[in-house]
Amino acid sequence: MFKKILIANRGEIALRVIRTCKEMGIKTVVVYSTADKDSLPVRFADEAVCIGPAPSSDSYLQIPNIIAAAEITNADAIHPGYGFLSENSKFSKVCEEHDIKFIGATPEQIDGMGDKASAKATMQKAGVPVIPGSDGLLKDVEDAKKTAKKIKYPVILKATAGGGGRGMRIVWKEEDIEANWDSARKESAAAFGNDGIYMEKFIEEPRHIEIQIAGDQTGNACHLSERDCSIQRRHQKLVEETPSPFMTDELRERMGEAAIKAAKAVKYEGVGTVEFLVDKNRDFYFMEMNTRIQVEHTITEEVINFDLIKEQIKLAAGEKISGKNYFPQLHAIQCRINAEDPANDFRPSPGRITDYHSPGGHGVRIDTHVYAGYQIPPHYDSMISKLITVAQTREEAILKMKRALEEYVIDGVKTTIPFHLKLMDNEDFKAGNFTTKFMETFEY
Amino acid sequence: MFKKILIANRGEIALRVIRTCKEMGIKTVVVYSTADKDSLPVRFADEAVCIGPAPSSDSYLQIPNIIAAAEITNADAIHPGYGFLSENSKFSKVCEEHDIKFIGATPEQIDGMGDKASAKATMQKAGVPVIPGSDGLLKDVEDAKKTAKKIKYPVILKATAGGGGRGMRIVWKEEDIEANWDSARKESAAAFGNDGIYMEKFIEEPRHIEIQIAGDQTGNACHLSERDCSIQRRHQKLVEETPSPFMTDELRERMGEAAIKAAKAVKYEGVGTVEFLVDKNRDFYFMEMNTRIQVEHTITEEVINFDLIKEQIKLAAGEKISGKNYFPQLHAIQCRINAEDPANDFRPSPGRITDYHSPGGHGVRIDTHVYAGYQIPPHYDSMISKLITVAQTREEAILKMKRALEEYVIDGVKTTIPFHLKLMDNEDFKAGNFTTKFMETFEY
Repeated sequence: MFKKILIANRGEIALRVIRTCKEMGIKTVVVYSTADKDSLPVRFADEAVCIGPAPSSDSYLQIPNIIAAAEITNADAIHPGYGFLSENSKFSKVCEEHDIKFIGATPEQIDGMGDKASAKATMQKAGVPVIPGSDGLLKDVEDAKKTAKKIKYPVILKATAGGGGRGMRIVWKEEDIEANWDSARKESAAAFGNDGIYMEKFIEEPRHIEIQIAGDQTGNACHLSERDCSIQRRHQKLVEETPSPFMTDELRERMGEAAIKAAKAVKYEGVGTVEFLVDKNRDFYFMEMNTRIQVEHTITEEVINFDLIKEQIKLAAGEKISGKNYFPQLHAIQCRINAEDPANDFRPSPGRITDYHSPGGHGVRIDTHVYAGYQIPPHYDSMISKLITVAQTREEAILKMKRALEEYVIDGVKTTIPFHLKLMDNEDFKAGNFTTKFMETFEY
Repeated sequence: MFKKILIANRGEIALRVIRTCKEMGIKTVVVYSTADKDSLPVRFADEAVCIGPAPSSDSYLQIPNIIAAAEITNADAIHPGYGFLSENSKFSKVCEEHDIKFIGATPEQIDGMGDKASAKATMQKAGVPVIPGSDGLLKDVEDAKKTAKKIKYPVILKATAGGGGRGMRIVWKEEDIEANWDSARKESAAAFGNDGIYMEKFIEEPRHIEIQIAGDQTGNACHLSERDCSIQRRHQKLVEETPSPFMTDELRERMGEAAIKAAKAVKYEGVGTVEFLVDKNRDFYFMEMNTRIQVEHTITEEVINFDLIKEQIKLAAGEKISGKNYFPQLHAIQCRINAEDPANDFRPSPGRITDYHSPGGHGVRIDTHVYAGYQIPPHYDSMISKLITVAQTREEAILKMKRALEEYVIDGVKTTIPFHLKLMDNEDFKAGNFTTKFMETFEY
């Protein structure tokens, strides 16, 4: 087992990793920016090394500084957390070259999954369902018609150079394809100077459901069931839960099998997540694979009674898995508490926390790095706490969340607590009736 | 189901009950003394009624004031918590007379279990093992010899009027009984003016192991396995855990069966606890039955994923149990954090908490009513928080407890945190090698 792990991250995830290391008897080093000098990870780690000023590019993304910190402190492994360098293949490679174990994916796995086109091709080859579409660019409107017939309506035309919805057209039936083809090409040419168009099946009422997987160094893999992360705003997850209210045993089995195929296709080592879009017919499509621990790993821990960071460290140290899969025994929900003003378009609200008191009691877990007097720096993402509730049923977990949110005191900055409180009272949410489009119409 | 529950208690247990009521959609009223006006239960309950000044005899024990508060606020049930009036048969009876459901045992059950001699007789009749001994007073030394032979050495001679160890003699073999008989009688006569002596089997290396039970109004009962509460100081429990490191499946089955017999013997309604002494041979003896929720109910909740307060309320409302028993799936430990100075003979340390920050993360639960700025009143017991850790194994739960204790910030008063930290490092404790005598030799 590792003797000393350097944590190349900050905030709650740095503290999360420190906690598990302490429980495993592993020494910790945390690197930090000057803006984070008063943070709890710096206080709780065995050693702390300042690696530069606040902008991440000068500190948390500075590979040489981090490697130097690891060498000075004699760390034999690096945990990258999430974000920052956690899916940076160069960093993974540099660690390898310095004989420091990177607790995450290999450079090849990161690169393979980081490039979306190549990831999609790998998955398709492995038999993992991907979103059907044209083989690259469409030649002409006849090609578009033929492809649409094959992958079935509705379809979406997308500008290859596109973004922000421009050059994008949803087409519901064949008689509309010609007009949409023309207008998409024109808009695309005008906006990007490129009228190349490709086609994908349009996923109606999509849910974001991901499967937690784990793989060992012998190529064996298992899954730990799903998380439903459909409640998101501009692709930022706000609330996660497991099991998904949309899930059936049959779908879980199919998705679990697909996720294990995905893991085995890349001989995935460590813990990771295979993200899928699931449509209203319970057909699912590979979106991407995250080769790292995720913010929402906590809810999986609560329903299967595992410490996923511990498992991650053990896998990195060469431990083998049994190949057995794990299924939720309870229901867990996580609300991301951000220092943002939900009444003001979720505008970030950094500043000093003047008063802080966290909820507690049965079925309540808090992962946070903040405290009364803590100054939230403006340089980083605005998540300041993860509030997790766990209960025997979804209804109970929601009621518990509401009770915990009502108890939570964070004064001095605006937070998303009022938003979550309102969400927990929303009839559609309570009924489990939501897709990734939910926040587009949810009125705070 | 009840519409409004009045909580006739204070501190963490009042908050504990409020939390569950909120999650069940039941309104709450808390009664409070003037000393508790700034407490969290008063803040979080739907209504709060002041019932008098600080000494408990003028407030939390004032039955007329509490009944008046229930009538004024239209509460249809009263939860007594633990301590105070929770095992007061008169209070249970007065509630009955006022048509307010007492969430606890009936007056008959409380009286039957409150009187130790009658409880022992009831249990013996029901086939629950009790500590063997003489039938009342011993006639003479020959009677003593005969009785000792029957119940087997070692035995203990006890003064019927005794206390504080006087007139008490442990006898290990027959040749010593005559001398001890004489000296015990003499000492007893001198100390209490009464030389009546009775005999009990002396329990070597006793453990305090209790079985959580639940019974419904139809007389059905089940058990929820054990808690080991052997780590105590002057009969005050300090640390509790489940499962007991001393437990075997076979012993759990025997003790569980005995506890169910005990519950059925008194047609026990609600949640309760049957306390046993267990000797080194894994023979066990009924000590007493607690007809209320206990401080340490939390650890049972963690290992069987139940909300025991919710079950208690549901049973009081007439819900039936299946009769199925429950077994620990994980390992949980609770440390009672008291405002006491362990370096100074655990002297109470009331005062103002100047800074407060609780640990969090995976497998950590906190039940507390205190916060930064809270003034701990000198009038009540000194427990200010319950810190619970839960993990897959005992070793992990201990390591997690250590990590959580290290993170716990309570400034301004002395607490038992340093004591618990030392205990978690103690080799005997870690090996599960302890009895109720542990604290007599543990050097803090």
